[in-house]
Amino acid sequence: MTHFKFTLLHQDGGSCARRGLIDTPRGRIETPIFMPVGTQGTVKGMLPEAVQEVGAQIILGNTYHLYLRPGHELIRRLGGLHRFMNWPRPILTDSGGYQVFSLSRLRAIDEEGVDFQSHVDGSRHLLTPELSIAVQEALGADILMSFDECIPYPAERDYVIASSDRSSRWAQRSKAALEQGEGNAALFGIVQGGMYPDLRARSAEQLQEIGFDGYALGGLALGEESARMYDIFEGSLPLLPAARPRYIMGVGTPADLVEGVARGGDMFDCVMPTRNARNGVLFTTFGRLSIKQSRYRDDAEPIDPRCACYVCRHYSRAYLRHLFLANEILASVLNTHHNLHYYLHLMEKMREAISADGFIPFRRNFYHNQEDGD
Amino acid sequence: MTHFKFTLLHQDGGSCARRGLIDTPRGRIETPIFMPVGTQGTVKGMLPEAVQEVGAQIILGNTYHLYLRPGHELIRRLGGLHRFMNWPRPILTDSGGYQVFSLSRLRAIDEEGVDFQSHVDGSRHLLTPELSIAVQEALGADILMSFDECIPYPAERDYVIASSDRSSRWAQRSKAALEQGEGNAALFGIVQGGMYPDLRARSAEQLQEIGFDGYALGGLALGEESARMYDIFEGSLPLLPAARPRYIMGVGTPADLVEGVARGGDMFDCVMPTRNARNGVLFTTFGRLSIKQSRYRDDAEPIDPRCACYVCRHYSRAYLRHLFLANEILASVLNTHHNLHYYLHLMEKMREAISADGFIPFRRNFYHNQEDGD
Repeated sequence: MTHFKFTLLHQDGGSCARRGLIDTPRGRIETPIFMPVGTQGTVKGMLPEAVQEVGAQIILGNTYHLYLRPGHELIRRLGGLHRFMNWPRPILTDSGGYQVFSLSRLRAIDEEGVDFQSHVDGSRHLLTPELSIAVQEALGADILMSFDECIPYPAERDYVIASSDRSSRWAQRSKAALEQGEGNAALFGIVQGGMYPDLRARSAEQLQEIGFDGYALGGLALGEESARMYDIFEGSLPLLPAARPRYIMGVGTPADLVEGVARGGDMFDCVMPTRNARNGVLFTTFGRLSIKQSRYRDDAEPIDPRCACYVCRHYSRAYLRHLFLANEILASVLNTHHNLHYYLHLMEKMREAISADGFIPFRRNFYHNQEDGD
Repeated sequence: MTHFKFTLLHQDGGSCARRGLIDTPRGRIETPIFMPVGTQGTVKGMLPEAVQEVGAQIILGNTYHLYLRPGHELIRRLGGLHRFMNWPRPILTDSGGYQVFSLSRLRAIDEEGVDFQSHVDGSRHLLTPELSIAVQEALGADILMSFDECIPYPAERDYVIASSDRSSRWAQRSKAALEQGEGNAALFGIVQGGMYPDLRARSAEQLQEIGFDGYALGGLALGEESARMYDIFEGSLPLLPAARPRYIMGVGTPADLVEGVARGGDMFDCVMPTRNARNGVLFTTFGRLSIKQSRYRDDAEPIDPRCACYVCRHYSRAYLRHLFLANEILASVLNTHHNLHYYLHLMEKMREAISADGFIPFRRNFYHNQEDGD
C-alpha cells in the first residue's frame, strides 16, 4: 500500500466539502471526483480516449461481471484490465458483493461467503472475501474494495447487526487476503449498518480498527428517498478519518453529488449518466432534458448552450433527437459523451468552488439553475 | 455544374484500372474510392472524425431514409446534411429508387413515378424524379443521382427494356429538375439494362445523349453471382466516357472492389464493411475473420497484425470477442472502425499500384493473401 497517498488540500470555509488529491502509480486523482462505470471492461459507448477527454481520472470496473465473463484469469494472462480495455489511468474495482445480491440468483449466505448462480449462464459459484480479492488482483485494479453484503432496504435491526458484523469480518479477511499477495494496490473498507445511525457508527468503528486506505459508504440504494440518504451522509461521513478518502458508492443524481460533497464525500460512482444517456435523458445546467420530445424536432441549439463538450460544440438537439428515434448507435455514443462530461465538469466546478471557499454559493446557484429542466 | 471536375491521372499499364481525382467545392476525392454508407445521417457507430481518420474522402447519404425521417425540409432548415451530421467533406446521395424497391411496400410504378408506403410509419408517398432531386438538393449533396427503377433480378427482357427506357426518361427529368434549381451540384446517370449486354449498351447510350457529370452502374444486387457481375463490369464500363467518373453502385466484397477497379471502376459504396462489423465479421489481409469464434478467446493478437488502424494498434482479438459476446456498443464501434479502415486502405493500395503500373501483380498478391481467412 506504499504507492497510494491521499492529500487533503483544502477544507471549504462554509461546509464540510473538501478538496484533495489521491496519488497512485497510474496517476493522480483530484477529489471530489466522479468515477464513470465500466461494467464489462468498457464504459458503455465510449472509446477510452473519449473517457479521458470528458475529464475522467479514474473509472470503476465490475468484479462480478468480469469474473463471470470473460474471466479474471483470462484478463490477467492478457496483461490485466488496463491493457485489456486500453485504459491507462487508475481503476477501482468493486467487490462483486452488490451485483451478487442484485443480479444473480442468490442461493445462500453464510460465514464463508455467498453461493450464487450466474445471470449469464446459470453456473454456480461461491464468492468469498478471498476470491473477491483474488479476482480484483488478477484484474490489476489500483483500488480494491473489501467484500461485503449489501443489505436490502428496508431491513430489520437484528438482521442489519448480524450482516454488518459479518461484513466487518469479511473486510478483515479481505485485508488479510490482499496482504498475502504481492501487489501494492490500495484497499477500501465499506461501511454498512443500514438506516440505523448507531449501526453505521459501529460498522465505521470496526473497519477503522482493521485499518484501510479509504472508507466507503455502502448500502445506499434507497430508491427515491434522497433526504434519508443525505441523513446517512451527514451522520456517517464525520465518523470516518479525515485523512483518508471517503467514497459514497453508487450515488447518484447531480444533486446527490452536490449534497455528498457538501457533507465531505470525496469519491462517487453511478450508472446514471451512462444509462440515462442511452435512454435519451440528458443532464444540463438547467436540469434534465429528454431528447425524444417533439419540442426538439427543429431545435438547432446544442443540448446545453452553456456546455463546452464535443457534442454541444458540434450537434443540435434536432440531430440528437433524430439519432435517438432512428435507434442509431451514435445516439448512445454522443449522449453518453455529453452526460459524462456534465458529471465530470460538475465535479471540477465543485473543486474550484471549494478552493475559493465558495461551496455554499455554488450549491445555491446550482439549484437555482436546475429549475428550468423538462 | 461548374465546380465539379474529374481528372484522369494515370491508366494502369496492364489493366483497365485507372487513377483520378474528383474536385468538388467541399474537397478533393482520389479515385478509385470507396464511399462509406451513412444511411440515416450517420455512418453507423462512427463519429465523423473517425470516418475521416480511417481515410474516407466522401460518404453516401440515403435520400429515401432522410426524406422519411427526419425529413429533407427539416435538414435544409438546419443548414443541410453536412452541418446536421457534422461531416465537412463531400456527400453523394442516392436517388431513393433502390430503397423504395427494397424497403417500402410498393404500391405502383407508372411514368410519373413510384407510389409507396413508408417502412417507418406506413404513410403513402409518390416519389418522382423531380421530388428525388428536390430532396437531394435540400440535403445539400455534392453529387446527386438521377432517379431510376432498380430492376429485380432475374427479369424478363421485355420488362427490362420498358423499365430501362423509362429510367432514361426519368434521368432526363432529373437533369431538367436540377437545372431549374440554383445549385451547382453534380448529377450522375445510372445505367440499367439488367443482365442483357445490349440493353446495358442501350441504356448507356441514352444517358450519354442526355449528358451527366458521371455515370453509374445500377441493378447489380445479384446475390452470390459475382462472375456474372464482373461480366457486366467488363461489358458496360467501356461503354461509358473515359473522361467521367464511373461509379459501381452497392458493391461489394473486397474482391468485388479489386475486380471493379481492374475493369475501370472509380467509385464504390456498400454496407458490407459496416453491417458485417456489427455482426462481428472482420476483413483482414488474410481474409474474413468471425470474432465470436472460440479460437480467439485468449488471443492477444490484433484483428490483423498487418493493419495499422487504431483498433489494431490498441485492442486484442480476445477483447473484441469479449465485447461482441457481451453485446457492448463498443464492439460495433471498434469493428466498424477496423472494417472501414480496411476498405479505405485497400483502395489506397490500389491507387498506389495503379500509379506504379502494378495493378496486376497487386491483384495476384491480394488473392494470395486472402486464402488464410476463417
